[in-house]
Formats: sequence, C-alpha cells, structure tokens
Amino acid sequence: MNYVLDSSKAHHKYFEELCYIPHPPFQEKALSEYVIAFAKERGLWHYTDSLYNVVVKKPATPGYENAAPVMLQAHMDMVCEKTPEKVFHFETDPLQLQVRDGWVMATDTTLGADDGYGVAYMLAILDADDIPHPALECFFSVQEEVGIGGPRGMDYSQLSARRYINLDGVQEGSTNVSTANVIGGDFKRPIVMQENSKPCYTVHICGLSAGHASLNIVKDQANAVKLAARILFAIGKEAKVHLASIQGGTIRNGIAEECDATFACEASEEHIRDIVAAVFAAAREEHELTDPHMDIRLQPAPTAPLVMDDLSSSEAIHLLHVLPSGSHMTNKRAINPTMSLASRNMGNVSSADGVLTVGYMFRCNIKSQLWDLFDQTCLLASRFGAYYDREYVYAGYTADTEHSEMLKLWQKVYRDFTGKELYLKYTHGGSDIGSINDGMGGIDAIVVSPDIKFVHRPTEAMDLASFDRTFEYVKAILAQLK
Amino acid sequence: MNYVLDSSKAHHKYFEELCYIPHPPFQEKALSEYVIAFAKERGLWHYTDSLYNVVVKKPATPGYENAAPVMLQAHMDMVCEKTPEKVFHFETDPLQLQVRDGWVMATDTTLGADDGYGVAYMLAILDADDIPHPALECFFSVQEEVGIGGPRGMDYSQLSARRYINLDGVQEGSTNVSTANVIGGDFKRPIVMQENSKPCYTVHICGLSAGHASLNIVKDQANAVKLAARILFAIGKEAKVHLASIQGGTIRNGIAEECDATFACEASEEHIRDIVAAVFAAAREEHELTDPHMDIRLQPAPTAPLVMDDLSSSEAIHLLHVLPSGSHMTNKRAINPTMSLASRNMGNVSSADGVLTVGYMFRCNIKSQLWDLFDQTCLLASRFGAYYDREYVYAGYTADTEHSEMLKLWQKVYRDFTGKELYLKYTHGGSDIGSINDGMGGIDAIVVSPDIKFVHRPTEAMDLASFDRTFEYVKAILAQLK
Repeated sequence: MNYVLDSSKAHHKYFEELCYIPHPPFQEKALSEYVIAFAKERGLWHYTDSLYNVVVKKPATPGYENAAPVMLQAHMDMVCEKTPEKVFHFETDPLQLQVRDGWVMATDTTLGADDGYGVAYMLAILDADDIPHPALECFFSVQEEVGIGGPRGMDYSQLSARRYINLDGVQEGSTNVSTANVIGGDFKRPIVMQENSKPCYTVHICGLSAGHASLNIVKDQANAVKLAARILFAIGKEAKVHLASIQGGTIRNGIAEECDATFACEASEEHIRDIVAAVFAAAREEHELTDPHMDIRLQPAPTAPLVMDDLSSSEAIHLLHVLPSGSHMTNKRAINPTMSLASRNMGNVSSADGVLTVGYMFRCNIKSQLWDLFDQTCLLASRFGAYYDREYVYAGYTADTEHSEMLKLWQKVYRDFTGKELYLKYTHGGSDIGSINDGMGGIDAIVVSPDIKFVHRPTEAMDLASFDRTFEYVKAILAQLK
Repeated sequence: MNYVLDSSKAHHKYFEELCYIPHPPFQEKALSEYVIAFAKERGLWHYTDSLYNVVVKKPATPGYENAAPVMLQAHMDMVCEKTPEKVFHFETDPLQLQVRDGWVMATDTTLGADDGYGVAYMLAILDADDIPHPALECFFSVQEEVGIGGPRGMDYSQLSARRYINLDGVQEGSTNVSTANVIGGDFKRPIVMQENSKPCYTVHICGLSAGHASLNIVKDQANAVKLAARILFAIGKEAKVHLASIQGGTIRNGIAEECDATFACEASEEHIRDIVAAVFAAAREEHELTDPHMDIRLQPAPTAPLVMDDLSSSEAIHLLHVLPSGSHMTNKRAINPTMSLASRNMGNVSSADGVLTVGYMFRCNIKSQLWDLFDQTCLLASRFGAYYDREYVYAGYTADTEHSEMLKLWQKVYRDFTGKELYLKYTHGGSDIGSINDGMGGIDAIVVSPDIKFVHRPTEAMDLASFDRTFEYVKAILAQLK
C-alpha cells in the first residue's frame, strides 16, 4: 500500500488505514472487525457487543503492574458530509486523503479526524512495545455522532478503570471541564384533516445562518420554524388559517435553516402579503446581525384537497409559536467564547400521517436545571395537546477541577512540554464522556486532542504536527500514571 | 439661605433649592409650582397640566432667531430610598445635602440628582442672559420613575421642537442610542378557596441577589417566585398540594428577592423536607455564581382554614412554573457591558380576594420583538387561565446613529472639550426619551449627563466637577444649534 501519510509512524499508519475502511454511524461493523482482528493477531483480550462497541485490553508494561488501569476511548463513527458536486458513497468508498500545508484532509468530504485520530492513537499504543503504561482498557465506541449510542448501550461490567483519557477533542492543549446533558426527541401532536376548497399559499423561509445548536444557539439567531409560526399566527389573528402542511429544518441538533408552510386562507392575497411583509421586515431588523441573508416569500399554491381542521390547525400554530427555541441562559463560568448553559432547540418540523412532529432538544450543563426546563416545557406543550416522545437522554460531565488527579497530571504534562497552561474548555455540546462517567459510576476524565479544523464539514482537516505532538502528550501522561 | 453648594453658580443654586422642595413621584406639585413661579417672575411662556408636567419656553437669543427650536427635558420626580435607620419623610422633609470629596449627596437618603441635575440646568439656562441658544422648549416632566407617566400623559401640541437634549443620564461623556420598549402589568388568575383541615407548611425563600431587572436580568440570577413555583411543582408531583397563600417580590421592576408560600399537604413532613432540600441543593448549584446567599427554609405553619381548591392550586403553581422570567436574548450591539435585548421579569406575586396576581414586565429594545414575545407569553398564560392586565406601555428609542445631527454635534462637542470619543450606550432600561419621541412623532435626541453614582440608593452622589463640566457641554451644544 502506498501511504499518503508517514507510515513509519504507527499513529499515521493506523489513521490512514482506518480512513480506507468506511465508518459512518451505525455502520461501524467493518472497522470494529478490523480492530478485533488487530487484537487477535496480538493476542490481546477483546470484547464486542451487538452495537459493535469494541474493548481491547492490554496488560501493564513492566514497572506499571501495580498501577491502576486507565481507559482510553475514541469513537469509530464519523460525520459524513461532502460538497454538493462530489460523487461519494460513505458506506462503501475509502476516503481520498491528501496533505496540504501540513494538514491532512479528505478530498471534498469530511475526514473523520473526529474521531479517527483517537482510534489511531489507541491502535498505535496497543501495537507498541516501547510505550510504558499501566493496564489499558481501550474502548472503541460507536454512534457518537448520532446521540452517544455506543456508550449508552455499553455493558460497563467489561470495564473497570477509574481514570480515563478521552481522545475526542478538536483543540490541542485543551480539555473539556464541562459538557452538556442532552435530551433528544420529538414533540408530537395529533392532527385531524378535513376537505378543503379554499385558496392556498406557501410561505417559504430560507437563507438563515443556522448551524449546530450546541455552538450557535447562544447567538440568538433566527429559526425558520419559529418564523413560520410567527407568520401563521399573525395571519391567524386576522383570518382563519388552515395549515395543509409544514416542513422545516433538517437535523434536530441544528437550528432550522428553512421552512415551508402551506395553508388555506380566505383573506385576500394582498392582505396576506401585507402581513407576511410586516413580519419579514420586523424579523429582518431583529436579526440583522445574525441572519443577513434571511428571505421570506409567499406564493400562491395549488388548492390542497386536505387541510388541518380548525382545532388542529390553530393548535399546531400555537404550539410552534409558544414553544421556546433558543438559549435559556449563558454559562457564566465560560466567558470566552460565550456559551449557553441551558438551551432548547426546535430543529425541525413535519406534518404527516395525522401527526405534527417537532424535533426538539434540551441541553444544559447542569443536570437538575435540564430537568427543570424539561418539566416546564412539557407542561407548556401539554396545554397545546402535544407530548414529548423522548428518544434519548445522555449525561453531561463536569470535572472536579479542584481535585481531579488526571487534570492535574495533564496540566503538568502540557506545561512541561510547552510552558503554557492547559485551556479548560466549557462546551454546550454533548460527548461520550458524560455517558461513560455515568456508566462507570464516576470516572476521572480528561480530553487530549490535536488541532482539527472545520469539523463536520467537507473541509475538515487535521494538523499533522499537532497530531504528532499530541501523541507525545498521551504517551507522557501514560508514563506518569504509575 | 446658607448654601452647601457654590450658589454663585446658577446650576448649583437651583439644584440645591429644588432639593429642599420634596418631590417624590406623584407629588411633583410643589416643585412644578416653583418652576411656574420662576417662569412668571421672568415673564416666560409656561404651561402645566393636571399631572403637573410643566413646559417653559424662552425665545431665541440674538443671532439664533432663525434657528429651529430645541427641547430640553428632565423629570422632576425622584426615587425615594433611605437607610433603614434613617427617620425621613420624603413627602415633607427637605433633603440634607452634604459634600464629600467633591461629591454631593443627601445624608442617608437618595439625592435625586437623578434627575434634579437636569431640572437645575434648565432653570439656570432659562435664568441666564449670557447663554446663547435657539428658541427653548423646556419640558419639566413627572412620574418618570414610576412608568414614564408624565411623558405618556403629555399634550404634545404644546411642543414643536424636532431636536431634543434629554438631561437624564448618569454617566458623563455618554449618550443613549437605544432604550427599551416596556410593557408593565399583572397576570391575573381567578382562584377559588375551599375549607381545609390538612397540615400546613410555609416555604420561605430569601437572600437572593435581586436588583433592578433592566440591569440585572441579563445576569440570569435566581428569582424567588420561580423557585417557590419549582418547589411547589416538585412537591405536587408526589402529593396533592393546596396553596393557602403566596407572596413574593416587591416591585414589578425588580427581580423577586424573597417569597413565602404557605400550603396544605398530607405528605409526611419528612418527605416534604426531602423534596425542598433537593430543589434547594439544585438551585444553589445552578446559581452559585449569582446568588451565593440563597436560603430556602420549610416550616410547619398553623393550619390554614382556607386553601385554594384542587384546580386553582395546581393551575396557580403551573402558571408560575411555566411563565418565563429572565433574559430572552442579549443585545449583540451592546457588548460591554452585556445587556439584554429582550427580557421578561416576574417581579412579584400575591394571592388575595380570589385572584392570583403576578407582576410581570416585558422589555425589548426592538418594538416588534417585544410584541412577539408578549403574544407568545399571553397565549401561554391563557392556557393556565390567566390574562394580562396591562397597566402601561412605553416606547423605547433607537437613535439613527448614521444620520442624527444632534448626535454628530454632541460627539464633536465632547471631542473638542476632552479629546475623547463619546460613549454610545445601549440600555435595557426605559426612559422618557422613547415616549417623547413617540409623542412628537419622531425627534432627534441625545442624552447629556454628569457622573452620578449609586443611583436609586441612599448613597446616591453626584460628582460636582462633572456637574460643572457637563453644564459647559450643554451650553456649547446650544451655542452650536444655529
């Protein structure tokens, strides 16, 4: 095989090899088999489950026999995004690696350095005979990118470590000291349709800045579904509105970028246009800093044969209008950059098969506050006939920054190598750490990662020099875990 | 009369004189009569109304006859706060002025430099024969501190200026470019009482940081009424709760600092204590940075003979639990200090005479967004049987920073005097400017003020050197308003 990276370095070699094994979420089987084959060849203890989580254990090296074991963990799945032009099948095609200015990337697709770097580090360490370490429990997890599925489905009796190096970050010289608790699911409201002969219109909202809610919710951007609800509510104040359909947003995790709502209404087209224009003008002013490309258009639509009945339509509109979507409060501990502490996001909406479905996520870095917000929101929604269909809950993690031995060690190692202070990061995103911490009944965790940019985008790239330096940090941490 | 200030300066003399005329909100009559007598003595045009708003006009000085008129405006009422020990009657007692380190203050009471300085400037200018200016329309307004009452009740046909110097700020070298639109009133929900023989408890919440909502709402502090609702809701999940009474917060404008809720419940005292302790522990963690002195206590109470019936009690609790109170979004234009753009505040709550009353304010620097938030919140509350009893609405002001001639002039004057740039201030507070702007059908406004510290508190003080400098700025602005 001709390597693009420097295959004389084990972590480069393994990173490149895994890039050639397709590994989207839910399709980690091939990569898990690769890891198991790797373990078998080396006679290492290994475990796998029906989700394709894999654990490989390696005994302590000489001198470390009495040290407590340490867990290393990275997830095998990757986000699959490509440029619109690119013809690429993530399920079957190997990534096309290239190196530019010291950064490795995959041509016109995500690279999956998130979290391939961590998988590569674990394989390199398991393979080595010259890296000193205590007993290792290497956890190759699955489905991180789609709701922390692997760690939530794991049988933790397979693991025993009380200390843990998470290899799933994006910034060299940083560690997460706070990640969010997350609840994901849908608000659902039954809808009843009736026959229609009134004229119909479609309001189309697009051009919003959108992006991932964990990062962008704090920016108070416009949400296309909320805007649609505001417009429908405004029209509904003046004339009867019968929703025919509403469709907006894509992923539940994202701020809704677009929304189409088709409705029947007997008010004059001119009157409806005036109302839409007024809301558009207001929303444009309100969001001029965050959503300069906002566009809202009203178009006559073919008469829909079926529309929601009076009650279903007004309740659907009211529900969407009243359900909060945005940052609830900011994290006062994290000041640079500003982060949300608690937030709710209406990611998408659809109406079909007699149900209005609203993809909705709750995030909060403090667990009690998450459930308080959840209670309030579900109580509110219940008054509009909607219940929450919870799909998953995953735990956040809050480091005990005063007492964490792992954190102290990582701070020391980073200082020794660079003379700089480790950056303690508060995020509003979820990660595997919280679920693993929960599963293990509490574990002392740190995050060690190289610099990766444009994560989750087709331009994703990893700094190879940082990839090398960070491997040295990991080795130094392991060496000091006596 | 022996003056404490330097009575050789007219603005000092008038400031001191008005301090000796009591002028709480709604009791501006005496001061208005003083102003009218002043105008009569000098043969100046004057006007007053049933609220005791006063307008005094003075013709242009020579050379300014062709210049458009300018409005000066300050409010005559003052916030009345004193130290707990101080024996003082704001309705009848003259303030006790003293000067310390160049700052004038009133012994153990508010000083009312907010907004006495502005009244004094107007009187000094009206009195002078050596200050050049265009035709002046001096508006001495009332009831600013209690909802902008004067400007909202004004007959604007008495005024004609299209440019306006507001003399109601607290910071030298700054002007407001954005103030909030505000809606004040109460959510009201009917309650039905029934006889009771079950054991009762009082939960007492106190020690919160509280403060004025326009400043503090952005800090995401705890709110005592919301905490009470959270506790009652948590108990209500486990056992039937019948509220006997709830009382919390003081002013509608303030974040509720304390709350007492008395309720009947058949669960064991121990069980109730556990629930209260759990919410307390959670809330303390959530608010450790903002409310370190939070305290929550549960005490057995005498059996209340009457408590709310099933529906009233649960709906009251649900309403308080679901009604949002906090910053809705921050003002991205104002970054230092961070300000809210839109917020809702639950200032107080009481239950009496068959009604639960929740003092509730909406603030937003963008008018359309205020009404959007208002619509959503009223719709939500209606589902818990509550309607909003609106007491007042007052308008915000947004300067046209690109085109305002007044702003350009004030920037130039400040630069000429100090070599520094004028600070453009975004506030989440209301002020007279918005209502006057509305009343005048649009007016080009600036704010000119000296440094005043501890506004609205018994330690309020005004920097006399700043008071002098700022008078020079005002005169320079007038001189250039050709």
